[in-house]
Amino acid sequence: MTHRIAILGASGYTGAELIRLIATHGGIEIAALGAHSKAGQSLAQVFPHLRHLALPDMVGFDEIDFDGVDLCFCALPHKTSQEVISGLPKNLRIVDLSADFRLRDPDAYEKWYGNPHSAIEMQKEAVYGLTEFYRDEIREARLVAGTGCNAATGQYMLHPLIAADVIGLDDIILDLKCAVSGAGRSLKENLLHAEMSEGYNAYAVGGTHRHLGEFDQELSKLAGRDVKIQFTPHLVPANRGILATGYVSGDARQVHETLAKAYASEPFIEVLPFGETPSTHHVRGSNFCHIGVTGDRIAGRAIVVAALDNLTKGSSGQALQNANLMLGLEETQGLMLAPCFP
Amino acid sequence: MTHRIAILGASGYTGAELIRLIATHGGIEIAALGAHSKAGQSLAQVFPHLRHLALPDMVGFDEIDFDGVDLCFCALPHKTSQEVISGLPKNLRIVDLSADFRLRDPDAYEKWYGNPHSAIEMQKEAVYGLTEFYRDEIREARLVAGTGCNAATGQYMLHPLIAADVIGLDDIILDLKCAVSGAGRSLKENLLHAEMSEGYNAYAVGGTHRHLGEFDQELSKLAGRDVKIQFTPHLVPANRGILATGYVSGDARQVHETLAKAYASEPFIEVLPFGETPSTHHVRGSNFCHIGVTGDRIAGRAIVVAALDNLTKGSSGQALQNANLMLGLEETQGLMLAPCFP
Amino acid sequence: MTHRIAILGASGYTGAELIRLIATHGGIEIAALGAHSKAGQSLAQVFPHLRHLALPDMVGFDEIDFDGVDLCFCALPHKTSQEVISGLPKNLRIVDLSADFRLRDPDAYEKWYGNPHSAIEMQKEAVYGLTEFYRDEIREARLVAGTGCNAATGQYMLHPLIAADVIGLDDIILDLKCAVSGAGRSLKENLLHAEMSEGYNAYAVGGTHRHLGEFDQELSKLAGRDVKIQFTPHLVPANRGILATGYVSGDARQVHETLAKAYASEPFIEVLPFGETPSTHHVRGSNFCHIGVTGDRIAGRAIVVAALDNLTKGSSGQALQNANLMLGLEETQGLMLAPCFP
Amino acid sequence: MTHRIAILGASGYTGAELIRLIATHGGIEIAALGAHSKAGQSLAQVFPHLRHLALPDMVGFDEIDFDGVDLCFCALPHKTSQEVISGLPKNLRIVDLSADFRLRDPDAYEKWYGNPHSAIEMQKEAVYGLTEFYRDEIREARLVAGTGCNAATGQYMLHPLIAADVIGLDDIILDLKCAVSGAGRSLKENLLHAEMSEGYNAYAVGGTHRHLGEFDQELSKLAGRDVKIQFTPHLVPANRGILATGYVSGDARQVHETLAKAYASEPFIEVLPFGETPSTHHVRGSNFCHIGVTGDRIAGRAIVVAALDNLTKGSSGQALQNANLMLGLEETQGLMLAPCFP
Repeated sequence: MTHRIAILGASGYTGAELIRLIATHGGIEIAALGAHSKAGQSLAQVFPHLRHLALPDMVGFDEIDFDGVDLCFCALPHKTSQEVISGLPKNLRIVDLSADFRLRDPDAYEKWYGNPHSAIEMQKEAVYGLTEFYRDEIREARLVAGTGCNAATGQYMLHPLIAADVIGLDDIILDLKCAVSGAGRSLKENLLHAEMSEGYNAYAVGGTHRHLGEFDQELSKLAGRDVKIQFTPHLVPANRGILATGYVSGDARQVHETLAKAYASEPFIEVLPFGETPSTHHVRGSNFCHIGVTGDRIAGRAIVVAALDNLTKGSSGQALQNANLMLGLEETQGLMLAPCFP
Repeated sequence: MTHRIAILGASGYTGAELIRLIATHGGIEIAALGAHSKAGQSLAQVFPHLRHLALPDMVGFDEIDFDGVDLCFCALPHKTSQEVISGLPKNLRIVDLSADFRLRDPDAYEKWYGNPHSAIEMQKEAVYGLTEFYRDEIREARLVAGTGCNAATGQYMLHPLIAADVIGLDDIILDLKCAVSGAGRSLKENLLHAEMSEGYNAYAVGGTHRHLGEFDQELSKLAGRDVKIQFTPHLVPANRGILATGYVSGDARQVHETLAKAYASEPFIEVLPFGETPSTHHVRGSNFCHIGVTGDRIAGRAIVVAALDNLTKGSSGQALQNANLMLGLEETQGLMLAPCFP
Repeated sequence: MTHRIAILGASGYTGAELIRLIATHGGIEIAALGAHSKAGQSLAQVFPHLRHLALPDMVGFDEIDFDGVDLCFCALPHKTSQEVISGLPKNLRIVDLSADFRLRDPDAYEKWYGNPHSAIEMQKEAVYGLTEFYRDEIREARLVAGTGCNAATGQYMLHPLIAADVIGLDDIILDLKCAVSGAGRSLKENLLHAEMSEGYNAYAVGGTHRHLGEFDQELSKLAGRDVKIQFTPHLVPANRGILATGYVSGDARQVHETLAKAYASEPFIEVLPFGETPSTHHVRGSNFCHIGVTGDRIAGRAIVVAALDNLTKGSSGQALQNANLMLGLEETQGLMLAPCFP
Repeated sequence: MTHRIAILGASGYTGAELIRLIATHGGIEIAALGAHSKAGQSLAQVFPHLRHLALPDMVGFDEIDFDGVDLCFCALPHKTSQEVISGLPKNLRIVDLSADFRLRDPDAYEKWYGNPHSAIEMQKEAVYGLTEFYRDEIREARLVAGTGCNAATGQYMLHPLIAADVIGLDDIILDLKCAVSGAGRSLKENLLHAEMSEGYNAYAVGGTHRHLGEFDQELSKLAGRDVKIQFTPHLVPANRGILATGYVSGDARQVHETLAKAYASEPFIEVLPFGETPSTHHVRGSNFCHIGVTGDRIAGRAIVVAALDNLTKGSSGQALQNANLMLGLEETQGLMLAPCFP
């Protein structure tokens, strides 16, 4: 049996990535592609790389008939997402890729995103979409809130370590190196090739990046106390990939064993042998996350590095993984594509 | 039923690409990975991006038991390839990715490659592996000679035009823009990132590139007379992709119609609407070839542009497409991966 | 004595390049930086790489006092340029980097640029700014029209060959590979890093690129008959550089000798030894143009490749070279910076 | 008066950068270019971007007549450097760019570099070449030891902060992002364009990078006690640039003021307004170092980011700055080139 899905916001990068993955999934059929400014265009116009697929043209959201749609992916900007989702059929299962339903506390949402939440009641039923840690809830959920790509990377590193109480909670530093597709397809001067290529810089320095809301929520819940990490993202000239370098206090060998044990049965999380470090080169275009642990010459310090593809494991791959669970499919279906190297 | 294959030369880029494609193929199992200097290493050491796959370690060629191997891919350098293939079981079906069995005329081989051919008798049974034009022969072949990646790109453009006699034969110019993975994994100064990135240049200028041997052979055979094209490759700072810009004399609309008709039923060749031009961005990591045709302000001139991924459609994807035919599988199996953009 | 200059359109890439070059020129002082949407911003805001320079803030054009300004560079979009220049003091010497005063025939201007020219009378006094060929006229000119960057590259290759009558005029093909800064700092989806990097494509195919107007005008004037070349530009993922590959009929050795002789005394044009080909890597950030000539296996064909930096020799460096002449300075002053490699 | 210099190791990237800078210096003449495997080649062969310069061919070191040479730059690999320098005339003034004379403690040298030092007596007279902090000693020195490029970047950030005692000494973390030219022109698989571009990774993780020897020596000397920082370099796909992100404890405003004050009169160190962060884009190809300071949402934490070009301020620019001092020239001569952006 094939499940029918719709994608709202199909003309952005996460939309394209969803379509790419679903193209060879086998158990999912795309019933509708919704777009805003690009409604009326064919897929070949919006994404020439997908021109070989026999898929419907982009349409406005209100042109979509959700009868017979089993699940809807929303790949829209935050704020827009909550407004659009409010208007969707109440029994429609939804995987939202925006930030709108990640934060359970409306005040935290308003603090980090600058606007009051307009669909508070729906936020209550939302499940945080970090598959490996919310699998059972996701299976039953009507609305799953996909995580931030940076937040996912950091949590893959930190979640088992905090759960097992093997690192200090008050001096966690995450230094992230992020590829440009994470900024989306919007037209900004600093995202032009001529401005981006051959150089790199930090941004949202000083604890101002919105994904901190997710870190605070999830890590504090896990620790049973407030946890506030330092988190500095950097923009590097590459299209896909997040590399998170974590500086933590703890025994490096114990840190490694904890992660290796936590992910031993996970299909997508690979913990490297102790002392090896991952590279974004080796996860590009795939749903895998590679994690490496190294000690330092300073006793009691561990360095943990995690790499994933922001568009796949950090966003659309995660969304499909969650959709697989919601639809009763094999969790890995359509997601075992090997990374594309070189 | 699963077919068992071996890959000789698994530690290069075309080897990696074969493994990547086979990883989600479904009908093929990798029995052995042969390597030379990297024999004894695990796949995770040689290609960390493939570490999630449960595959055997790299071994020396003489350690491989070919009993029970249905087909062998040889992804070795030219000259080495003919020597190794000479020593393989005589009934083993082989897809060779090197240049060694492409040229039917031993003198042409020696002229372009600089050494006499040491396995002349095998060259006679080899079928030229441009699937779309040699499908029936490939199905029955014991030995298929994969084409040069540049030669494939150019022929996808020119073959139907020469066959239909719609372009002049004496003023064909191909200007190719090639990504660096086409040069392989060998250590050369000009392939270092610091030398390659942010700049580009022509190479093998003046009719000296070896792939001209293939062009001469195939296009002359097709035309029934000598055809000598001008062909200038350029090295551009990207990892994957060949963009061939062809300058031909002929009626542009007729050129377009000829190509559109020739490829109407082909699963991997997409002829764009008249006046549109393809991009290597839109075929990256896939087995697709996009072709566009435009007229010129000068009457009687047409510009044809073809784009493909040198490692996939230009090499390992083509090899797998041929192997599918040889093994009686669906030709497209494992090859419908959508391009990876951005 | 220091000459005082102003730059209108200082917030684009050619503006930045002018400032970079003038920063170590020694004989020129920047009196005013004019900008449109970025008026009011400091140079450090608009171009942080120039923050060490003690220069005035960007101002609106009408805030500039041209008394005491010896020369004005206009780095504005076409059409805007003619409007702004019409309003400048009539005795102010001007180097315009736009397309507005390149074409002497108003009909040709309207054909290629789509709007009637609003400053016809000024067009008559403009000198075409290809320094090496209009040196004397430039020295005396009040208004110099900087050339298109593609047009400059092509003309450096073709001008001496047509002047010496050593190539055929009816089958000239120029295949250009252009870096993205040539498209300027405007916000377009296809110029985003995620869309540009790692791929390449042709554009303005089929004799539709506006720089053809310049080629037609200059080459026809030189030949004393109509000359129409084929010219296809390609966009490649690099920030700076144009590589023009020219396919011409003629004796390759004679082509080489003609170019070598023509440029023997030119400070910025380097003709490589016969058989060598240039690279954009080797002119990056400099005012040099490298030209190489190769024969082909087909007798009577020559391949000429020219490389320059579109922002320097193709635009702002050329503009400064012309300004030096106009101001009675040494032509090479401030322009001998060695290319930046790697 | 023009000073005559020689460069040993002129065929590597730091050699090329020295020649590039000296090309427009005005007060320095290159008397000899020494190379090892490339001896006998012309500059145009080794570095085509420098072909316009009338400079001598590369020669073996023993072919150089040091009479009349005022200063010698040694851009050789460590270990080779000490051997070669031992054999040079004892009164020849030398700026060494290798690691060989940076560490005053021979045991530290042997620990970090793996071989005993063969020129201990010369090490004693060497001055550590971080110009801003050793200006007077450098002026008088016979042998100046250029710093590691990572070590320079980190020290520009940390030196004034430790000197002024405004940050904690026991929890300093430096996360560095380094461009590939820092690895030199040697042929390594991971430095190939196809392996490097579009991805990034940490290396020398866990306190194993050799530049830690310099940090330990200089920061401990400054603090009057042992200081051991954590330092993790990352390799990013760009040709030039180091971005160092420092995580320190201290009052962010005080940190900013301390740096601003320390560098107020320095010609090459730009401290940005509080809250701004630098980018390697904005120092490319120049001798400038940009430093930014930001607070964190966690009180008592400051984030300091420093950017420089590893080949210029991190190596050859620094070397020339030191040579200027040694030769009695203006310190900034030949070094005021504005960064090359885009």
